[in-house]
Order: sequence, then structure tokens, then C-alpha cells
Amino acid sequence: MKPFFQVTDLRDVLAMADEIRPTDSEPKPLGSTLGRVLAEPISAGENVPPFARATMDGFAVAAASTFGASEANPAYLNVTGRIAMGEVPVNVLGPGEVMKISTGGMLPPGADAVAMLEHAAPLDETTIEIYRSVAPGQHVIGVGEDLGLGETLIAAGRRLRPQDAGLMAALGCTRVRVHRRPRVGIVSTGDEIVPAEAKPGPGQVRDVNTHTLADLVRQAGAIPAKYGLVGDDLPRLKALCRQATAENDMVLISGGSSLGMRDFTVEALAQLPDSRIRVHGITISPGKPTILAQSGAKLVWGLPGHVTSAMVVFSAVVRPFLDRLCGLTAGSARPPVMARLTRNLESAAGRVDFIRVRLVHGADGEILAEPILGKSGLIRTMVQADGLIAVEMNTEGLEKGDPVAVALF
Amino acid sequence: MKPFFQVTDLRDVLAMADEIRPTDSEPKPLGSTLGRVLAEPISAGENVPPFARATMDGFAVAAASTFGASEANPAYLNVTGRIAMGEVPVNVLGPGEVMKISTGGMLPPGADAVAMLEHAAPLDETTIEIYRSVAPGQHVIGVGEDLGLGETLIAAGRRLRPQDAGLMAALGCTRVRVHRRPRVGIVSTGDEIVPAEAKPGPGQVRDVNTHTLADLVRQAGAIPAKYGLVGDDLPRLKALCRQATAENDMVLISGGSSLGMRDFTVEALAQLPDSRIRVHGITISPGKPTILAQSGAKLVWGLPGHVTSAMVVFSAVVRPFLDRLCGLTAGSARPPVMARLTRNLESAAGRVDFIRVRLVHGADGEILAEPILGKSGLIRTMVQADGLIAVEMNTEGLEKGDPVAVALF
Repeated sequence: MKPFFQVTDLRDVLAMADEIRPTDSEPKPLGSTLGRVLAEPISAGENVPPFARATMDGFAVAAASTFGASEANPAYLNVTGRIAMGEVPVNVLGPGEVMKISTGGMLPPGADAVAMLEHAAPLDETTIEIYRSVAPGQHVIGVGEDLGLGETLIAAGRRLRPQDAGLMAALGCTRVRVHRRPRVGIVSTGDEIVPAEAKPGPGQVRDVNTHTLADLVRQAGAIPAKYGLVGDDLPRLKALCRQATAENDMVLISGGSSLGMRDFTVEALAQLPDSRIRVHGITISPGKPTILAQSGAKLVWGLPGHVTSAMVVFSAVVRPFLDRLCGLTAGSARPPVMARLTRNLESAAGRVDFIRVRLVHGADGEILAEPILGKSGLIRTMVQADGLIAVEMNTEGLEKGDPVAVALF
Repeated sequence: MKPFFQVTDLRDVLAMADEIRPTDSEPKPLGSTLGRVLAEPISAGENVPPFARATMDGFAVAAASTFGASEANPAYLNVTGRIAMGEVPVNVLGPGEVMKISTGGMLPPGADAVAMLEHAAPLDETTIEIYRSVAPGQHVIGVGEDLGLGETLIAAGRRLRPQDAGLMAALGCTRVRVHRRPRVGIVSTGDEIVPAEAKPGPGQVRDVNTHTLADLVRQAGAIPAKYGLVGDDLPRLKALCRQATAENDMVLISGGSSLGMRDFTVEALAQLPDSRIRVHGITISPGKPTILAQSGAKLVWGLPGHVTSAMVVFSAVVRPFLDRLCGLTAGSARPPVMARLTRNLESAAGRVDFIRVRLVHGADGEILAEPILGKSGLIRTMVQADGLIAVEMNTEGLEKGDPVAVALF
């Protein structure tokens, strides 16, 4: 008699992700931070810019010297010099005086604005007229106006983007601590499975899950470690699970869709060091027979064998845990794409149904989500799909035209 | 007197991307194709599965033997054996006969369906009763039902995803031709700019654009090559542009926001081998002073110097060209996220305004786009932003609550 097990509500499973501690951190130089997760906040160690800069070509001026200027009544101002790029102007600008300045140039003492070249005309070698008044601070970036000394600019737990590297460069921050990429061990099970490189004999098929899971792990910013295939051999499965758990931050066992193999996997996971089975069955479809074991502080997943089920469970369940292991803070997932459903979808109450959809453009430019129907064992359906929609627990289905949130692959 | 130049409409600039020829191709093994762009279609060289497989644990059966079966009137069937995983059943199943089979097992000749274990009960060692009729093909994936011999499954020009690696594995396709990652040369100009590693002297600021552009290039799947900084030195700028053009598939010159530096850049680009200036100014803001030169078959961009303008022009203008160079077919960009604007936005007619926005969740769970206001020179505004919205040419602005399409960074 098998032990009775109770299927866990998807929300309760996902709530367990809050227990995850991220990997430790390592220093990375500017230029290799893209996509890495920040492990310490970035603060401004200095003011950027360190001086007031012009953002237009024109004339540095005390704004008050231009007040009231108009086409009919221009202000006449004396040009006392020209500021070269990278030059430090030392002479103080007096009232009624201007200095020629280029974009990026440093404002001289006494100036608090730039009058645009287009709004000025030379009268002679040393005099211009200005047709528009400028406000204090206009066409200028003040000291520390971009990044102010001491401000926290990027919080820890964020995935670094190109502009974040720009911010680091602006501050002269050429190294930053990021979380180590987690290592994820991958084991495939099933007596009828042969490696992708092999020619399957009669009754055999090639291993698909190792390859989709490895790329899903890479896409999440982690490092897959492949442990190969194991068949109907409990001692070997136990040994491989134990090794993979010791050598990685998380482990994914896939396959074992048959009842026999599933029992096998549970048995192997239950016998890992300091192990307990946290989840044995989740209220989702596909993917109900998913197992989550915890060995010490490490999580070991038993994913379904059907290739589409394994991908769906990874995307909807495993990924949030892996994101936390990568150091991402909660709620940092990419927002879904909203679309309208092209047909009615039935759904059983009491579980969350994940439906593969393709995005298509409607006649009026609207984005439509077209469900891809087909047996859940078909890799083809995942290749045709752009993402997943979830039909929630207490819904009996969705109707054509309903708005749906598509989580893109 | 400078030559007169005419600002080009954004749509006309983007249409030039159709002229781009992708890079050549190279073979890549399964396991290193994620994110690469397919250079040849993937077709099925064999049927997957190569035999009819069970998708449930149960009994292989000729569906006709179960017709009419119900709880009240079960079908009585003889169990003639059990099919092990990876085994080839040779005995033909006769009418009224079943064989025990596990998920993934091979159907014996004579069987065309699987009756689920849950819908059967043993009567004695060799007899079961089945309570539900099954249809032909039920709980079975037929020969070639997933991938049919000769079918084209993935078209060339698509960026490969995890499920595409799964499809390759299923077919035993362990190598595939992908487009070579384009190399993109990056040059920064400006007399007041020092490298990110340096301590700026008075009047100087650090180089930001090299780093944001390098990561934007990486994010697009290409390889950045940094050529460093050049100041007010036309011969050196010309030499660097010539070298970068010779050594790369595309070149980005950034900086030169001042009129003097802009004239400089145009002059350097005009003097590249076999060069013509295709675009000198685009109807967008920020980013109007963008230059596009063509030297032979290679494109060389002169991007604005303001850090935010350079990023916006890359995302809205350069990226579609780089995507085509990577081998992507038109229209393969990620769909935007729809959101509602949190405030009115004014906009000048006659140009496309790109506005940085942050996504926030409204009280009712709706996604809102909050414009980030601030001078266009501020890197801070890009760090705070999640994406861009475009306020089109013939719009005078947008109103609070209007739906907008956010292109995420």
C-alpha cells in the first residue's frame, strides 16, 4: 500500500520560494555584468556630473541677464570668451556678459543657464543679441543633478541591464558584486530513452528533456550540469541523485511518467541525505505529478516525463524558485503580454490549467492569443507556441474574446 | 557654408533595414544554440515517435473491443502479457485481448488505443473489466504524430529557444547552421570624455556610451568591439572609423553632440571607403542628429552623445538593422507590453517622440506606464525606466488613461 499523498495548491508551492536563500556573491568587472543579479546596492560615490554642464550649444549666461528678452526687445550681451571642451573656465561671468559654450562644456562661475545658439545673433565681434529669455538651470545639468553623492541608485536583487553598466561607468564603478550563477543538475530517467546522439532502437526514443531543461536553466541565468540518463535501476538513480545534489545548488530529475518510474523517483528522493518530500503532486495541469524534495537546504524536483509537461512545470513552478536562487527579489518577473483569446477554452475547476498559445495580430492590430491544442507529449506544440496562459483554479473556462495574460517563453 | 541636409522620416529610415544581408552561417552543436539565429530550416529526417507510444499507464487494446463499455456494462478482456519499457511487442493483439503497458511503451500490433489503469479493475490473473470505452488513437501518440518525416518544423531566421533544442534532440539533429554573431565596432568621441576607469579632471566626465552600447549590442546577440575614445582630432577619428569599419560588420560612433563634433563625425564618415551619407537627421526626439553612412555594404552610425539619446536611437532605430544582420526575419521583435498612461503627454507634431516609462501596477492589477521626466542627458532616467513608448508623428500628445505599447528594454 503506497503512502497516501495530498496534492498541494499551486499558491502554497510558490509561497515556498520565499524560503530560498540566494547563492553567494562574486566581484565582476564592468563589461561582464549584463544579465547578472546585483548582490549589493550601487550608490553614488561622487556627484555626476561633478560640475554644471551645458546640454546645448550656445552662450553661458546668468539667466537674469536675459529676463524680458524677446524678438521685439532683444537683450544685448558682451561675449567675453569661449569655453573649450574639457576646459575649466576661471574668469567670473558678470551681469550682461556671456561666454560661447558647446554641449558638454563646463559653465563658468557666474553663469547658471545656457542661451541656445539658435536664439542669438552676433552684432559684432564682441556683442550678441538674444531673442528669448532663459530660466535659471535651463540647458544645464547641475552638479550631482544626474547622480547625487550618497544616493542609492540600484537596489540589490536586480538583473543588470545595459543602462546599469552606463551608470556604473558614469560613477567610475568598474567592479560590482553579483550573485554567483547557480548550478542546476539535470538527470533524465526512463527505460525507453536513449541519448540525442544515439539512433533509437525499436521501442526507444531520444532524450528531449535534458536539452530543453538545460536551455531553460541557461535562459534563467544559471548553469546546467547534465548527468545523463538512468533507466529502471533504483541504486543507480539514488547514487546519481545524491551526486547531483552534492555538486549543484538545485537538481531537476525528469521523466518517470509511468507510475512505476514515479514511485522510483520518490523513493530515490526520499533517501537523499537529510531529505523530506515537501510536495507530491500540484494542483496544475499539465504537471500534476510533480515532486519537490528538500535535501538539507537544497531543492530537488521530480518533473513529469512528457516533454511539454516538464517545460510547463519549469516555467510556472521551478523558475520562480530558480530566480530567487539567482538572487532576484520577488516580483521581478517580466510582465506578461495581454492578448484576446481566439476561442472558448474549457477547464476543470480545482486546478490551474496552463494552455500553450501562439500570438497573432488581429485585423485591427490587436494581439490575439490562439490556443495550440494537441496532446501534451508533443514537442511540436511547444515549438509552435509563444507562451502560456493560466486558467485559474476557480474558473470553469474562458470565452473567446476574453483578455488573457501571456507569459512568453 | 555647410551642405543643406534634409531630415529623414523614421519610417523611411527603418525601411532601409530590408536591404541588410545577414552574416554568413556556421555549424553549432546541440547545447550551444540558445539565442542563436537559425540559418537553415529544420526538417524532420524521420518520424517522431517512430512507433505508436502510450501516453498513459494502462492496457493496450483495439479500441473496438471497448465500444459500449460503461460502469453498468463493463467490457471483459483477457490480459495476454505486459510490455516492458523499451521492449518491442511481437505478438499480435486479438479482439478481446489487452496487454499491460506503461506511459511511453510501444503499442503491440493490433492495438490502436490505451485504456487507462484508473478505468479498469482486475477480475483474476488474466482477466480485467474496463468501465469506459476508448476511441481509436486515445492515450496514444501515433507514428510521426509529433514530427512527421519531411515536414519543415522551424523556419530559418528564427532565434532558437529551449523547445527548439528539444525538437533538435528528438530528431537526433545534433548540429545546426546558425548565423555568425555580427561584430559591432564602438567608438566614442568628445574632448571632455575620459575612460570609465579614469578619475575625471575638472571639466571632464567619464565615457558612458561605450558601455551602454556594448551591452545593448550583447543583448541583441552580437559581439561588441570597443575602439576607445577620440577627441578633437579629425585625422585620428577618420583612421579609427576606417579601422573599425574594416574589422566589423557594423560600427557605432557615439558622441559629438556639439555642432563642431557633429560636423567632424559627418566628415569622417563621408570619407570612409566607398562611402555615402544615407541619413543625416531623423524625425525623432530624442535622437534627431543621428547619421547613417554606408561604406561599401557596411553601415556606420553616428549616434547622439547624450547617453539617453544614444540608447533610445539604438533601441528604436539601430536594433532593427542589427536584428536583420543577425539573420532574424522581419517582425520577429518581442511584442510590446500594453499599459495605460498615468498622465497627459504633450508632443510636437512632425516627429516621433520616444518617452521613457516605468511600469507600475494599478490598484485593480492593471499595468500602468508612468512617464519618467527629466533632461535627456540623465542616465538616471534610463535606469529608472522599464521601456519606451512612441508618440507618433501626427499625434499632438497622449492623454492620461490612453493605452500605450511599451517596448521593454
